[in-house]
Amino acid sequence: MKTEETLVKDVTSQVASFVLSTKLEDIPEGVRKEARRALVNYVGCALGGCRHEAMDITLRALGPYAGPATASVLGRAERSDPLLASLLNGISSHVHDYDDTTPSNYIHPTSPIASALFAYASANKVSGKDFELAYILGYEVVTRIGNATYPAHYDAGWHSTGSVGVFGAAVAIAKLLGLSHQQMVWAIGLAATQSAGLREMFGSMGKPFHPGRSAQSGYMAALLAQNGFTAGVHALEGPRGFAAVQSASYDLSVIVDRLGEQFNLHLNTYKPFPCGIVTHPTIDACIQLREQHRIEPEQIAAVRLRVAPLVKDLCDKKLISTGLEGKFSAYHAAAIGLVRGKGGLAEFTDETVNDPLVSAVRMKTESIGDPSISEDGVHVEVVLADGRTLSKQLEHSLGNLERPLSDAQLEEKFRDQAGVLPKPRIEELIASCWRIEELEDIGKLIALAIPGS
Amino acid sequence: MKTEETLVKDVTSQVASFVLSTKLEDIPEGVRKEARRALVNYVGCALGGCRHEAMDITLRALGPYAGPATASVLGRAERSDPLLASLLNGISSHVHDYDDTTPSNYIHPTSPIASALFAYASANKVSGKDFELAYILGYEVVTRIGNATYPAHYDAGWHSTGSVGVFGAAVAIAKLLGLSHQQMVWAIGLAATQSAGLREMFGSMGKPFHPGRSAQSGYMAALLAQNGFTAGVHALEGPRGFAAVQSASYDLSVIVDRLGEQFNLHLNTYKPFPCGIVTHPTIDACIQLREQHRIEPEQIAAVRLRVAPLVKDLCDKKLISTGLEGKFSAYHAAAIGLVRGKGGLAEFTDETVNDPLVSAVRMKTESIGDPSISEDGVHVEVVLADGRTLSKQLEHSLGNLERPLSDAQLEEKFRDQAGVLPKPRIEELIASCWRIEELEDIGKLIALAIPGS
Repeated sequence: MKTEETLVKDVTSQVASFVLSTKLEDIPEGVRKEARRALVNYVGCALGGCRHEAMDITLRALGPYAGPATASVLGRAERSDPLLASLLNGISSHVHDYDDTTPSNYIHPTSPIASALFAYASANKVSGKDFELAYILGYEVVTRIGNATYPAHYDAGWHSTGSVGVFGAAVAIAKLLGLSHQQMVWAIGLAATQSAGLREMFGSMGKPFHPGRSAQSGYMAALLAQNGFTAGVHALEGPRGFAAVQSASYDLSVIVDRLGEQFNLHLNTYKPFPCGIVTHPTIDACIQLREQHRIEPEQIAAVRLRVAPLVKDLCDKKLISTGLEGKFSAYHAAAIGLVRGKGGLAEFTDETVNDPLVSAVRMKTESIGDPSISEDGVHVEVVLADGRTLSKQLEHSLGNLERPLSDAQLEEKFRDQAGVLPKPRIEELIASCWRIEELEDIGKLIALAIPGS
Repeated sequence: MKTEETLVKDVTSQVASFVLSTKLEDIPEGVRKEARRALVNYVGCALGGCRHEAMDITLRALGPYAGPATASVLGRAERSDPLLASLLNGISSHVHDYDDTTPSNYIHPTSPIASALFAYASANKVSGKDFELAYILGYEVVTRIGNATYPAHYDAGWHSTGSVGVFGAAVAIAKLLGLSHQQMVWAIGLAATQSAGLREMFGSMGKPFHPGRSAQSGYMAALLAQNGFTAGVHALEGPRGFAAVQSASYDLSVIVDRLGEQFNLHLNTYKPFPCGIVTHPTIDACIQLREQHRIEPEQIAAVRLRVAPLVKDLCDKKLISTGLEGKFSAYHAAAIGLVRGKGGLAEFTDETVNDPLVSAVRMKTESIGDPSISEDGVHVEVVLADGRTLSKQLEHSLGNLERPLSDAQLEEKFRDQAGVLPKPRIEELIASCWRIEELEDIGKLIALAIPGS
């Protein structure tokens, strides 16, 4: 039996063995189902972000340097090489901050992994089962390395979606390429030595660049390793390796603890609203109040929020004019919940923020920080023009582990973002994502996500 | 007048201003001369490494994904896109650990900068003056950021040649692209957020991958910024920026202190031998002894080295069989100095290590650690078969700041590495490097470095 020390001494090698030896049949159906939910969520987010200015800029800047156009970019007609397609998929799927989150480490795990996988599978024939397996393994590697180094790594200022995500892209592509154990170890090394992404970029296009660049770098690591490019073989655990260099404290045993027996995918969460997660309870409660009492905007005289003190600190901006500001305004959150009954991409445009109905309710909203309210909860009071006061206390916000989005809600979120595609195509694509294990060639699913194809 | 705090508050912006506003005429001739020496050294190293297996592997792995072949790779007939060419130039120029070093921070500064610049200039018309200026500015930015974060950044395990080098590539390419101040700040941000490279890769191809990937990432940062891809604007000094995240301690005032007035290039050094720097004094002293006393291998009965204790620790391997091991063996160092009178690339092949004349002397060599000897010095005694004992005490090894390589020695080093080119071509290329300021299009110099062109 291995001792704790031995376990940790060769963790890179053990991760490589796990990725190489695991078959889809080894993975419980519940985990596989959650993988499909994550992929439905991912593809929707990629479509939602595919027309973002950051995508156009990247294509303009790097398109002239792209290789043979064997790959597709989700949601775009332009074709590209698979490495640039990985970058582009990563940008689109994270640019609205609407993709999934692992609450145990705040990583958005699917963007870096799936962005590389979809690029690869658009240029190479991959079965749905192989794709799903590679994704699950990538997810497992990312979240385990993320958990092993959380919170020190994130607190230091690393955007772990990028800096840890790169490992997921590397092992997922390496799995599809059929690397040997030695090559897989090198791929992990070449991923580690490209690990990057600073939280200083938050609020700029640099943020979605992170999962994109990680997808691209991880893909490249796998290609190089496949061809015999060597790397240090203790990339995770070595004295100058990823954990030692990029995390002030860590517990590498977390990476290998019940590896292959326990899977993390059931601990993944999906955002119902494309905005700061601390405003989610407010939107959620206000939507519920509106539905329950059929509130019309004109009836609203005042709104009073009691939120966690942290939420008050982070989201206290009422005088706003842009959609981006709206993503971090508790007042805007209340207004869209009460006026629109919805918090989709359309509710975070400049237009919506400046909509007179929305801004009128925003200006009538007050908030106080209340230590008795959790960051995942809210207390909302709506005073109506007729003097009635309606109230709602929420303990857990929609989308959290305690109240996961249903499949139907994930589909609704998908539809809300998939406007680049014709409606029947959207339904076909959603159905394909659910049926992924049956697909002989995932290229057919990808083709559905390309306008005009 | 700016206070210290203000100086540091906007250091990223100040670096951008410095790069944008500095003209070649602002730079003293001594600095420009040193830039040419660095470029002679760089081009020689790129030629010396251009046939390394790591180059073939990279071309095989990534060539199929390369964009339109508008660029050249130094020493290779294959053409590529400029981004892949940057990576390849970076690998070749660092793969033998023979490129330049800034002793103040152990960065090999020229590889990441010049690798991107030569790739760019092979695809775009660039005058020699513009090229030299961009290089000097990149060098200044790299060494200042390196000095500001040394030793904490390096000691943590970062291979700063990569993790700091990326800034040099970014600003040098951005200078040639003519970016605005805003774009230059973004380019620095996008460089910072790709800063990577772990010392755990030492001893593998991952090491030369670092300056290559940095050259490529910095080039990409400049292209993205040029097209409007935004980034955090406090990449160096922000609370989640490069210095705070990647260096436990740092002094940002070093970056801006006398910026534009004082240049660091005269503090650059060039290795006379392609091996661990701590073995250099031994090779140097043994070459001198051999020349002075016309020693023949057969005369040697015993060799006794007194070296710094650190050198004894690092280079104590006598039973070796590969060139790579030879690079870190004090015994091999003595043997090649005494037998070959030389320490070029050919002295660090497997063949030379197993050469009976060389290995016989290696086996007759003993060493002791002596605290009175500096790491830059050595004491060598050679006992001859006739009973005579010859000795040499060296205080400073050739190639250090105290004993810089002469121009002629740099040329000799160049010739030793340029075997891929015909002899007359080598001389023409050396002359072109010295005359770089006169060249209207540096593409002509580059063409000389391509076999068969």
